[in-house]
Parts: sequence; C-alpha cells; structure tokens
Amino acid sequence: MITNPEKTTVYGRPVQTDGVPNLYEGTQVVRWATPEAGIDNLGIHSWDTFAIPGVGEFDVEFDGYVRVVRSEPTENEWADAEVYTNLIEMKMTGTSEELGTITVTLNPTCLSAGQIRNPFDPYAGEGPSAKACRMAVGCLFDIPKLGKTLFNKEPVILTIDDVRSIPPAGAPGKGQIYRMLPLHDLKNPDAEPVGYLTSLRFNMGGYLAPEKIA
Amino acid sequence: MITNPEKTTVYGRPVQTDGVPNLYEGTQVVRWATPEAGIDNLGIHSWDTFAIPGVGEFDVEFDGYVRVVRSEPTENEWADAEVYTNLIEMKMTGTSEELGTITVTLNPTCLSAGQIRNPFDPYAGEGPSAKACRMAVGCLFDIPKLGKTLFNKEPVILTIDDVRSIPPAGAPGKGQIYRMLPLHDLKNPDAEPVGYLTSLRFNMGGYLAPEKIA
Repeated sequence: MITNPEKTTVYGRPVQTDGVPNLYEGTQVVRWATPEAGIDNLGIHSWDTFAIPGVGEFDVEFDGYVRVVRSEPTENEWADAEVYTNLIEMKMTGTSEELGTITVTLNPTCLSAGQIRNPFDPYAGEGPSAKACRMAVGCLFDIPKLGKTLFNKEPVILTIDDVRSIPPAGAPGKGQIYRMLPLHDLKNPDAEPVGYLTSLRFNMGGYLAPEKIA
Repeated sequence: MITNPEKTTVYGRPVQTDGVPNLYEGTQVVRWATPEAGIDNLGIHSWDTFAIPGVGEFDVEFDGYVRVVRSEPTENEWADAEVYTNLIEMKMTGTSEELGTITVTLNPTCLSAGQIRNPFDPYAGEGPSAKACRMAVGCLFDIPKLGKTLFNKEPVILTIDDVRSIPPAGAPGKGQIYRMLPLHDLKNPDAEPVGYLTSLRFNMGGYLAPEKIA
C-alpha cells in the first residue's frame, strides 16, 4: 500500500511494502552491492539528550529495533544506484533515574521516510563510491515520570555517512539537530513544547532474529 | 484562527493571527525588549544552492519579503521570555541563467512555525542573554525552465543565532541542511525527488512599507 490516509504528515517518498520479504538474522550484508527490495529487521542503539525546561537536561541511552522497508534499487550497479526507505516500525527503550523508562516508537500519523544516494559533497576520506543515508522520522517519546507522551513536529533527521553497504548495518549515525528540536505533549499539541531533544547519536545494528522483534 | 484544516502538516505551534496588528516600515526594533504580538512585514534575502540530478548544481540569489506573526511574549522581561512565530506569507524571486526566474512561496498545506527562546548551549561570543531563533518551513519553488513546482517534504530549518531583538531584523541566518534536502515535483509527489537543496544562507531585512508587500 503506497497511499495511507492515516499518514497526514509525509516526510519523504512512500515505499511499497506489499509482497516485500522480511529479512532477519542470517541475511548477508554485502559491500558495494544493491540488494533487492526487503524489510530490514535491525537492531539500533542511541544516545539522546533531552532538555526539559524547569526540570533539567538528561542523557539517556536507548536500545531496541527498527523495521525499514527498502525499495528496489534504481540501478543494479552500485555506482549510481539510489534506494528509498520507509521506517515502518521502531521500538527503543532507555532508562533515566529522573525520567524513568522512556519508550520511543513511531508517530503513526507520520510517514517516516528516507533514501540512500550519492552525496553531492563527498567527504575526503569517504571512498569515491560511498553513499549518504538520511531518514526523516516522526517519533513518540513515552515518558511515564512526566506522565506524558511527547512528539516532534519537525522530523528528526537521522543520517549515516560513508555508507558502503545496504543496509548500513553496524554504521554510526547522527541526528542532525541544530541546538534544539521541540517536543510537544500529545494531549496538548498546540501548547508550548514540554521538552527539547538537544542531541542524538546512534548506531545501526545488524539483522535480528524474528523473536527479537516484539 | 488557530486550527486550520488546510494545514495537514504542522511544523510547530500555531499562533493566533486574528486581531494582531500589521507592522511596517517605521516600527522601531528595540534591543533586549519583548514587544507585544504583531505581524512583522520584513525584507529577506537568501542565497540557495540547488542540485538537480542530470542537470547540474546552481547558486541562486533571492530577494523578497516575509510576513511573520509573533505571539505575545511568555514573560515581559527579556531574560526568560519566549516568543512563538508562524510564517504566514513569503515571496522571494531569484534568477538563474539555467533555471530562469525562480519564485519561492509558502506551501499552503504546511503550517510553517518557529520560536525564539534561550538556547540550551549558549555560544562563546553570544551575550548571556542572546536568544536563538528557529523556524521550520514548507516551501514551493516554482522553476519555469524545468516546467515544475518543487516542494520539500522535510521542513527547511531556518535559524538565527545571537538574537538581540524581536524581530531579529538585519541578522544573518542559515538553513540547517545536512548535505541535501530532497525537493519533489508537486504534480508527481510520490516519485523520486527532482532536485535537492544543498545549501541556504539568508539575511533578515528590516520592516518594509506596505506597498512593498504584493
């Protein structure tokens, strides 16, 4: 299904999920190759910093999984291929003494989407063929000690540089947050932000066994 | 009017426009002061770089105006005050030999929104009281030589640092674009991006005379 009326906010190109196979632990990740379309079930680990005005600033480490549907590559050869992605499921949990156990999932009203393509500004140090990966994501942050679920109205832009395989399993990435990204209370969305995401780093994990996906 | 069903994509907090006065040339901009709510009619100048795969990379200089509605400040004193903003109108034009005269306006399906508040990470060199300004914007780029109107599905994040007045008239700012921001064809929104915005700098101008706002 490409068009989904539930998604009022669309952050990128929709990718077909119907008939696309799930890929789990045991799937080979091959460098400089363009795999067929698939749903990657991958581990993810992240380090987020939250600023909650009047409460404080908190570093929280998260662990969990993502499910990413990938399009067919636009070319068979690595050199010019592009791949489009939708983040179709995410679950990460992290514990902070002050904020309790935070659970991060996808905001169902957003189509979280991205792509892998050649950068226009390849860095020195990247191979001539390394690609850039980016994904724009709408999240829900359930924070029980605040009694609130927070969500972002601007997407969190997750990027991975120097991509040498699809998926970029094992690669480090960054949330491109400039100073602060406002987080709103799901129950009071038009009010002032309740908190801000001020920093985000992550590591893509490898393929997970099916039983690791809740 | 706070809720507007036309805005399917909401990038921030809605700000009331009913009964808020328009402010034009002659309005004083006062440092370290918190003005009452208003609609700022301001000049804007920007320098954008577009990458169009298969066509080339183009630097285009734009000039035009914005209309920004500002909320009442949350506090009367500058030190802790926050102000919420919506970009309610924009028109900029710029000419490129290869792309023709490009017109940039707001995407009417997006609520383009932002805020001015104290940063959590004040820079060395900023006064202790300088604020940070950010705005998330949905644009339409009408490019006649391509025969297309392009739009962004991820907001363009416009930021101004070291804000010492509200509005930050005359201040330089930046579009926080990490490597590339995809631009889609309005008539074929689910297809591959037609182009990318790869860089954006801007300068906020001062208050304009009413006749300068089309």
